[in-house]
Amino acid sequence: VSIPTITFLSDYGLKDDFVGVCHAVILSICQAARVIDLTHGIPRQDIRAGALSLSGALPYTPVGVHLAVVDPGVGAHRRAIALKSADQRILVGPDNGLLSLAAASCGGVVEAVEISDSRFRLEPVAATFHGRDVFAPVAAHLARGTPLADVGRPCDPSTLVGLSLPAARVEPDGVTAHALYIDTFGNVALDASHDQLVRSGLKLGAPVEIEAPGGERHPGVYARTFADVPAAALLVYQDSYRRLAVAVSHGDAAARLGVGIDDELRIRPK
Amino acid sequence: VSIPTITFLSDYGLKDDFVGVCHAVILSICQAARVIDLTHGIPRQDIRAGALSLSGALPYTPVGVHLAVVDPGVGAHRRAIALKSADQRILVGPDNGLLSLAAASCGGVVEAVEISDSRFRLEPVAATFHGRDVFAPVAAHLARGTPLADVGRPCDPSTLVGLSLPAARVEPDGVTAHALYIDTFGNVALDASHDQLVRSGLKLGAPVEIEAPGGERHPGVYARTFADVPAAALLVYQDSYRRLAVAVSHGDAAARLGVGIDDELRIRPK
Amino acid sequence: VSIPTITFLSDYGLKDDFVGVCHAVILSICQAARVIDLTHGIPRQDIRAGALSLSGALPYTPVGVHLAVVDPGVGAHRRAIALKSADQRILVGPDNGLLSLAAASCGGVVEAVEISDSRFRLEPVAATFHGRDVFAPVAAHLARGTPLADVGRPCDPSTLVGLSLPAARVEPDGVTAHALYIDTFGNVALDASHDQLVRSGLKLGAPVEIEAPGGERHPGVYARTFADVPAAALLVYQDSYRRLAVAVSHGDAAARLGVGIDDELRIRPK
Repeated sequence: VSIPTITFLSDYGLKDDFVGVCHAVILSICQAARVIDLTHGIPRQDIRAGALSLSGALPYTPVGVHLAVVDPGVGAHRRAIALKSADQRILVGPDNGLLSLAAASCGGVVEAVEISDSRFRLEPVAATFHGRDVFAPVAAHLARGTPLADVGRPCDPSTLVGLSLPAARVEPDGVTAHALYIDTFGNVALDASHDQLVRSGLKLGAPVEIEAPGGERHPGVYARTFADVPAAALLVYQDSYRRLAVAVSHGDAAARLGVGIDDELRIRPK
Repeated sequence: VSIPTITFLSDYGLKDDFVGVCHAVILSICQAARVIDLTHGIPRQDIRAGALSLSGALPYTPVGVHLAVVDPGVGAHRRAIALKSADQRILVGPDNGLLSLAAASCGGVVEAVEISDSRFRLEPVAATFHGRDVFAPVAAHLARGTPLADVGRPCDPSTLVGLSLPAARVEPDGVTAHALYIDTFGNVALDASHDQLVRSGLKLGAPVEIEAPGGERHPGVYARTFADVPAAALLVYQDSYRRLAVAVSHGDAAARLGVGIDDELRIRPK
Repeated sequence: VSIPTITFLSDYGLKDDFVGVCHAVILSICQAARVIDLTHGIPRQDIRAGALSLSGALPYTPVGVHLAVVDPGVGAHRRAIALKSADQRILVGPDNGLLSLAAASCGGVVEAVEISDSRFRLEPVAATFHGRDVFAPVAAHLARGTPLADVGRPCDPSTLVGLSLPAARVEPDGVTAHALYIDTFGNVALDASHDQLVRSGLKLGAPVEIEAPGGERHPGVYARTFADVPAAALLVYQDSYRRLAVAVSHGDAAARLGVGIDDELRIRPK
């Protein structure tokens, strides 16, 4: 017998009891469910960071229900949705782009419902905590096997809110990329791929020059991993989600380069 | 078949292995148990914050065993207790008021036992870690179905330690309330209810004046949710536990108003 | 039927999704597994802190698979290993000393395999995330019952990397000990035992003098627990893992004494 699985990602943090109460709601409804906390450390209200984390993690998770809540518009007019992807995953969360990258990488949306008024929500719905009162109970009923069509009103997948991401450009002398995400250690994930870097003339193991947003140029290496460069050296590498990233071995690349989210970096052979 | 459920709340934090070791002890004794971590982020030794979180969360949890440890008196003379509430929940923790609000909101205590010398404790009991050596093993045996009377010595429920909370007052020109709890985001939960605010002449959607502990007066709105006010605006709202609270949209109300726990705030129509 | 148990300890923290993705990988392979997070708050790359925490926690955990990842050499030449202890626990992690203290306290290693090229690893293996691509999938297959010999190549237990720890000395006028580990609260765990302290003439309840690394001498008490001394007082006590430790009641002993990891403290009767 298969154990129903719910993955759960949010920006709730673990200091308050928000995450714990959502677990309690889920297990009150679907006693057999197994909840996998992907992370609750998404920077507060950062929809894009949540969307990137969810889409990166999903291929490693069992097919099941995937609950995600990063919801700056809670209590306002954004829709609450549940959707089915082409590969039979069910995603539940606010319709603000959070689910869009994951849905796309799972083959696109084949069915969607609006769940703000779901008959499975907990009444009275608190205006500030739809995680507990709307998303968690609907996810739990879906994990029990309730069909998607029974948890809300049908809605047209083409009307779901998307997310616009910057796009790296291959240029004659290198790649112009953007900071997509900066992790706890100051490693900067870029929107460029290994292919783009190769097309711009860069080779694994070769020296590179990285132009920071402020214009200063920093020497680095296109390396396989941290262990391939000395401590404090700057490297460009393919991260564990196969995106290019910039890091400082035993250091903080975002601080060293003065990079914030969406800032441009130019990477050139040297 | 029902899965035995243990909820777990503490001030242990997640940096050290205290929480993990308690999980290990529980599952060594009651292999089938499911442990729901409500939160381990209660401010260190803050019994009242723990009691408020536990009593707020419990209605959302399956009926089961409810373990809570915020225990400044560990190793001293406070009793360790397990008790049954009128609605058949079993609460386990130190007798310092931590369980009192939850027990009251579950219909009161119908049976209590002192577990400091429980035959199920792990020997030798470390003077500084009763979570591992007393509370977790007793909770696990209770989850296995051991009767309450078998885990300790009977004690009189009327002798259990309570908690005194401040009380908001409705006054001719508004409500005088107190800061009960301040969350990660600086939102300030008050001891006043929606009813008290209404009786003082305040209406949802209307402007209010909030007098801070220092005497300064701040304009705000009695709103349904954050999304109803502009960024940086001050609002009074009913939080997800139906308590009144003060917040700043995208900001930190506790810092803005200079409020600490138990401080008085006066809220008036304007 | 026994539920396969995997304990999991790392320095990944909970801000990113590293831990959640490892859980997902494990449960994708071994659906029935129960994962107990011992802690993910080991200070980054601190192999010794991880080794001490693992060896302290293991006696409280069900016998099963024990996954640990503190891995500064990921992507370099350190081996990845799985080993069986004399008491039938299976430990999985990098061969950098992290598993050594736990293995020793479990009766020593009776069988070991090198798993870097395990047929159960996830391809392509990311150079920076062996937790996800090597350790978690191998641990999950072991939890399913796959024999140790089938997950890697045999390796000689005597070649496994160990860990050198400082050693306290009993001297005519007291004990010279070292700071092994400093917890969240600033409590300093030492490499001295209760026996060593007793042999140096110290008695429970008696005053002591603690000489800090800088040479200043601080008065304290050899106490059973925090509750036995006034707030702000310095105490030496036996911690919950039966190591001696130095603490300040309601305070931070590491800061008060200016102690860092491995620093020497001299404790004398007074």
